[in-house]
Amino acid sequence: MELEVYFKFILSFGLILIAARIGGELAERYLKQPPVLGELVAGIIISPFALGLLISDPIILKDVVVELPPALQALGYHEMKPLEFISQVAVIVLLFVAGVETDVRSFLRYGLTGAAVAVGGVVLPFAFGYLITRAFFPDIGTAGWLFMGAVLTATSIGITVRILMDMGRLATPEGTTILVGAVIDDIIGLVILSVVVSMAEPGAQISIASAVRTGAIGFAVWFGLLMIGVRFGHYISRFLLQPFRRSGTIPIFALIVGLILAYLVTLVDLHPVVGAYVAGLVFAATREKEEIVEHTRPIMLFLAPFFFAYLGMQVDLRMSGLAWLVGVILIVGATLGKIIGCALPAKFVGRLSNSGAMIVGIGMVPRGEVGLIIAGAGFLAGAINRELFAVAVVVSIFTTLITPAMLKPLFRRREMIPSPPAR
Amino acid sequence: MELEVYFKFILSFGLILIAARIGGELAERYLKQPPVLGELVAGIIISPFALGLLISDPIILKDVVVELPPALQALGYHEMKPLEFISQVAVIVLLFVAGVETDVRSFLRYGLTGAAVAVGGVVLPFAFGYLITRAFFPDIGTAGWLFMGAVLTATSIGITVRILMDMGRLATPEGTTILVGAVIDDIIGLVILSVVVSMAEPGAQISIASAVRTGAIGFAVWFGLLMIGVRFGHYISRFLLQPFRRSGTIPIFALIVGLILAYLVTLVDLHPVVGAYVAGLVFAATREKEEIVEHTRPIMLFLAPFFFAYLGMQVDLRMSGLAWLVGVILIVGATLGKIIGCALPAKFVGRLSNSGAMIVGIGMVPRGEVGLIIAGAGFLAGAINRELFAVAVVVSIFTTLITPAMLKPLFRRREMIPSPPAR
Repeated sequence: MELEVYFKFILSFGLILIAARIGGELAERYLKQPPVLGELVAGIIISPFALGLLISDPIILKDVVVELPPALQALGYHEMKPLEFISQVAVIVLLFVAGVETDVRSFLRYGLTGAAVAVGGVVLPFAFGYLITRAFFPDIGTAGWLFMGAVLTATSIGITVRILMDMGRLATPEGTTILVGAVIDDIIGLVILSVVVSMAEPGAQISIASAVRTGAIGFAVWFGLLMIGVRFGHYISRFLLQPFRRSGTIPIFALIVGLILAYLVTLVDLHPVVGAYVAGLVFAATREKEEIVEHTRPIMLFLAPFFFAYLGMQVDLRMSGLAWLVGVILIVGATLGKIIGCALPAKFVGRLSNSGAMIVGIGMVPRGEVGLIIAGAGFLAGAINRELFAVAVVVSIFTTLITPAMLKPLFRRREMIPSPPAR
Repeated sequence: MELEVYFKFILSFGLILIAARIGGELAERYLKQPPVLGELVAGIIISPFALGLLISDPIILKDVVVELPPALQALGYHEMKPLEFISQVAVIVLLFVAGVETDVRSFLRYGLTGAAVAVGGVVLPFAFGYLITRAFFPDIGTAGWLFMGAVLTATSIGITVRILMDMGRLATPEGTTILVGAVIDDIIGLVILSVVVSMAEPGAQISIASAVRTGAIGFAVWFGLLMIGVRFGHYISRFLLQPFRRSGTIPIFALIVGLILAYLVTLVDLHPVVGAYVAGLVFAATREKEEIVEHTRPIMLFLAPFFFAYLGMQVDLRMSGLAWLVGVILIVGATLGKIIGCALPAKFVGRLSNSGAMIVGIGMVPRGEVGLIIAGAGFLAGAINRELFAVAVVVSIFTTLITPAMLKPLFRRREMIPSPPAR
C-alpha cells in the first residue's frame, strides 16, 4: 500500500520528537539549561550527517526532497520536504501562542524602544557580515557579501520567546522589548532580503522604490492588525469567537484564524510567523485570552520541540578549515553586533538598567530560522555557494545555541539584586 | 522562495479546518447531529470536485499528488499527498486519545462479545459485497468481486468513537463492545486484504498459510501489548512516564509513544490506528490516565475535524447511472449486513438488550477510512476499475454519513426508558 510511506514519515516525526524530548529533559535537569538547547543538540546528533547516516532507510531521519507535480513547477514551485513542512506549521503555532501570551498594553508602551533596538540590531551586524565575508571571500561578488550581511541582521524570535516562556519572563519590560524589536527587525530583514534577491538575479537593478514599498505595506498591515485587535477586541470576542462557545472550540478556532492570517501576510511579502504572531496579539486583547492560551499551549508544546530539533538536523559540521574560521569570526561579529547594536538603544531610548539592556542585546542574538531562510534564499538565487551556505547555517545555529547559556545567568543575577518589580 | 509552497499548504490546511469547524457547528446547533456529520458534508462541499473546482490555484483545496525521489521509488513508494499525510496523523491521534479514554477493565470483560460481533460483521457484508458486485459487474473477475466484499467488511472505528465521545458514551457496554469488535474486525479485514491483494497479482496463488500467519501475528502483538499495559501499568508509570513529570510533558511523551507504536505495528501488517489505539489502552491502565487525556484532547480536537473533512473531500458525486444503482444496493447490503451480523452476536453472546444490540449493529456500519484504504489498495493493484473504485468510496462515505443519524435517536430512546446504569 502507498500509505506505508506516510507511516515511515510518522515514525520519523515520532523519533525526532522523542529525541527532542529526551534532549530537552537532559538539558533542563542535568545542565540546568533551557530545554530548547537540548532539543537543538538532539537534532544535531540525529541529523542525516550524524546518527541518521547509520540508518539505511531513505526516509527515517532523512530530509526527503519530494518533487512537485508539473502544474506547480510551472508556477516556480519545484520541490518540498514533508518534515520541513511540519516544522513550518510548528513555528507558526509557536509564534501564535507567544502572541496570545503577550501583554498587549505593554507591547504598545515599548513600541518606540523596540523600533530603536531593531534598527540598531540591523545596522551593525549587516556591516560586520558584509565586511567579514568580503575580506575572506573576495571572489564571491557584491550580492554574496550583501547576503551574508542580511543573514546576520535576522533575529529569530522563536528561541528567545521559548527561553522567556520557560522562565516565565515573557511579560517583563525586557521580554516585550525583545519581542517588539524582533518583529520590527523581521520586517526590516525581509525588506533587505527582497532587495538582495532582486540584486542576485542576472542583470537586475536595485530598486529602492520597490524595497520601500514592500517595507511600508508590511509595516502598515502589521500595525493595522495590531490596532484592530486592541480597539475592536470586544467585537472580535462577540462575533468571531462567541459562536464557537457552545462546542468549546474557541481556542481551536482562534488558532485556525492564526494559520490563515500567517498565510495572508505572505501576500504582502511578510514572513508567516509575523502573521501568526500578530493574530495571537489580536486575541490577546480579547476576554477569551486565558481560555485560548490554556487549550493551544498543549498543541504548541507538542509541535515546538520538533521545530528546534529539525533546525539542529540541518547542521553538517564537516566543513573546510577556512569555512570554520570565517564561521567563528562571523559568530563573534554577529554576537557583538547585536549586543552592542541593541543594548545601547535599550539603555538610552528604553531607559532599561544595565543588566536589562544586556538581556535585550543578548536576546536579539539568535538568528535561528530567519537566518536559515535568508541563507536558503541566497543559496537558491545563486548569490552564495554551498560552502558559504553551510557557514551561514552554522552561524545561525551557533548564535542560537549560545544565547540560552548567555541569557540564563543574567536572569539569575537580576533575581539576586533587589530591583523594582518586573511586571 | 521555495517555502511559499508550504504556506499555501498551510492555507489549505487552515481553510479545510475552518470549513470543518463551521460545518460541525451548524450540524450540532441547527440539525442536532454530531459535529462529525457536518465536518464530512463540509468536506464534500469544498472538495476539488465541487467548490475546489472554482479556485484556480493548483494547491488550495486540491489534493496535490507529489512524486517521491528515485531512492524511494526503487522501494515501491511512488507518490504522496501532503494533506493526506496530515489526515493520517490526525486519525492516529484520534485513536490514541480514544484508547486512553477507554475503560480497560470493561474492555477485557467485553472481549468475547467483541470477537463474536467482529466475526458476524465480517461474514455477512463480505458475502453481500461479493454477490452484488458479481451480479452487476460480471466482467471484472474474482479478484474484483472479492475486493468489493473486503471493502464492505471493514469497520471505521473513527466515526463511531467520535459520536460516542461527543455523547459521553464511550465507556458504556455498547461503546466498549463496538470498540473491541472494530479492532478485531480491523485485524480480520487486513488478513482478507492481504489475501485479496496477493490474488490480484498476475499469476499469484492464494496462500492460506501466509494469511493465517499474518492474522496470528497481528492478533498476538495486539493482545500482548494490551496485556503488558494492564499487568505492568505500574512500571510504565514509574520508568517511562515519571522521568517527564518535572517538565510537565508526560502527556506529550505518551502521545509520541503512540505515534511510534502506530508505526511499529505496521511491521506486522496491522493498520497503524490499531497501534495508536492499543498504545492508548496501555496508558489507560496507568495512574497518569486523566492527565494524559486532559492534555492530548486539545491536540485531537484540533486535528480530528481535519481528518473527517478530508474524507468528505474524496467524494466525487458525478458517476454513471449503473454505478449509482450498484452503490445504493451496496449501501443497503453493507448496512443490513453489519446490523444483522453484529446485533445478533451482541444480543446472544453479549446478552445486551434489544436497543443495546441495535446500537452495536449500527455502530459497526461506517466503513470510513478503512473502507477507503482497502478500496485504494484494490484500485492500485488493478483488481477494480476507476468506476468501481468510485462506488467503493461512495459506499464507505455513505455508510459513514448515515450512521450518526441512525445512532442518535437510539441513544435518545434509551435515555427515556428506565434501564440499569450504563457504567
